Amino acid sequence: MDELQRTLQEVSESLEQKMDKLLPSDEDDNYGNTVIAFRPLNDNMPDKPSPVGGEDTLIKAMRYSSLSGGKRLRPFLTVMCAKLFGVSREASLCAAAAIEFIHTYSLIHDDLPAMDDDAMRRGKPSCHIVFGEAAAILAGDALLTFAFQVLADERVHPDPAVRCELIRTLSMASGYRGMAGGQMMDLEAEKKQLSIDEIIRLQRLKTGELFAMSCEAGAILGKAPRPLRSALRGYAHDIGLAFQITDDLLDAEGTRSAVGKEVKKDKQAGKATLISVLGIERAREQARILANQAIGHLDVFDRKADQLRALAEFVIARKS
Amino acid sequence: MDELQRTLQEVSESLEQKMDKLLPSDEDDNYGNTVIAFRPLNDNMPDKPSPVGGEDTLIKAMRYSSLSGGKRLRPFLTVMCAKLFGVSREASLCAAAAIEFIHTYSLIHDDLPAMDDDAMRRGKPSCHIVFGEAAAILAGDALLTFAFQVLADERVHPDPAVRCELIRTLSMASGYRGMAGGQMMDLEAEKKQLSIDEIIRLQRLKTGELFAMSCEAGAILGKAPRPLRSALRGYAHDIGLAFQITDDLLDAEGTRSAVGKEVKKDKQAGKATLISVLGIERAREQARILANQAIGHLDVFDRKADQLRALAEFVIARKS
Repeated sequence: MDELQRTLQEVSESLEQKMDKLLPSDEDDNYGNTVIAFRPLNDNMPDKPSPVGGEDTLIKAMRYSSLSGGKRLRPFLTVMCAKLFGVSREASLCAAAAIEFIHTYSLIHDDLPAMDDDAMRRGKPSCHIVFGEAAAILAGDALLTFAFQVLADERVHPDPAVRCELIRTLSMASGYRGMAGGQMMDLEAEKKQLSIDEIIRLQRLKTGELFAMSCEAGAILGKAPRPLRSALRGYAHDIGLAFQITDDLLDAEGTRSAVGKEVKKDKQAGKATLISVLGIERAREQARILANQAIGHLDVFDRKADQLRALAEFVIARKS
Repeated sequence: MDELQRTLQEVSESLEQKMDKLLPSDEDDNYGNTVIAFRPLNDNMPDKPSPVGGEDTLIKAMRYSSLSGGKRLRPFLTVMCAKLFGVSREASLCAAAAIEFIHTYSLIHDDLPAMDDDAMRRGKPSCHIVFGEAAAILAGDALLTFAFQVLADERVHPDPAVRCELIRTLSMASGYRGMAGGQMMDLEAEKKQLSIDEIIRLQRLKTGELFAMSCEAGAILGKAPRPLRSALRGYAHDIGLAFQITDDLLDAEGTRSAVGKEVKKDKQAGKATLISVLGIERAREQARILANQAIGHLDVFDRKADQLRALAEFVIARKS
């Protein structure tokens, strides 16, 4: 467990640095679009930069929500899966940053008053609390857009076919039949009773697909054969669901200070979760079964996958 | 002018069909991700699809806002610019649809209560009025995401390097130093006096960059030489600004039924526009100068660019 903690910490720090470097700032922009000189009304007027307030706010909001620690599980999956196929840390961190920008945008929008209405996130005030609702909507939009800019850039991989496959897979995992679809289901779930099957399907879309994409990204970067990519998908879906059940257990049993956000919200909202259907004990047991199943998917890999095996244990044992 | 109207109508109809076909529906999904079979809790349970409410709402909202007519100027630019380089209509319509999905998402989010708070759009109730705020936020997110899925697909172009360049350019044009940045400036502009330079810069980001991208997309698909791509960028920026000035003139002078949305909102909001700074007459004159300048950029093209020349005239003459 100690080695996993060290690696989690190390990847989390490298990722934070990578995101910091990729994201625009007041002084710099890694993608060559520093303050754009406006086109004057007619060609006889000189071209000159003329910054207006607004961009700064947007960039500050993007940075505030992105660079705020967090568990960084998805980036860890990308980096560790990429390592199985000998991909450079530099490349896998770029792809991981793109996925984390998507995850971050979804948190920003999810916290909005019209959505889950959460005032706290990762132990800090939510984006819209600090910057206002409009800025939070736009910062989410801009991060979502930026994720694809990062993946389209050759720093991720010299082969454009690989970059296109990353983009295609990420857009599917986060779109209407992925994360966004799952969030919509989740909102409608508050109004009705869901069966176990329906809750699993909801979770699979809401969090499972992006977990799967995080693992697949490593396989795509390493041009891995299909069966290995599928094994990682299976692993990801199992730990994704185990992660979600643990989240619900923490929500049901945890305290605000330990978890870093509001807890017991699900019960207040009358939301169906696997816990409300299975009860706490059977849900915990189910998380255990899923962790074992996840580890089973890794049988095709040798000792190189040990950290991924350890992660499956960690996901159900975590306290926040 | 008659020929332009016919072509505008024809492109608008082909685009509507293309978007209809690309967008998911209840029965079909052009990207192979029909209702995903959920992974059961353990591998001994059978895999079976189990749809939950929510996806349907999201897909309905995406379709409602996308398939609602509109001027479709950006798609027209893409199709006409692509035609200059002999690109197939099929390919240019795919790219045009992606750009229009981005434009549509920005309208959905812009109409939200926390943003411009508009209850009407293109003569119909806005997305959040029909589907609720949460669904509108997610439908915008899903359309933004979907645009990149469309561009990553080989139906757009067999060469993945071309697809990556489309994605890179579109994400830059619509992100923090493009459309999203411009929208943020626009929101902050309500609180202060802007100079002419600042208003132009704001408009350039808010609408100009996506106009430019719409033209560049044609050049990228046709692997056009840099100078021709730059000429189209110059053209696009000039008609983009001329378009915006005309929009502001319509807002200042038009009636709700003719324009199809609420008018005189800018004055009510005390927002600085080129009209509030220049006055109506000088603004109209400026639109004229920009249209001429736009046509000048097309000198490198022969008669094939005549429809683009006619468009520059149309943009400042339109009544809605």
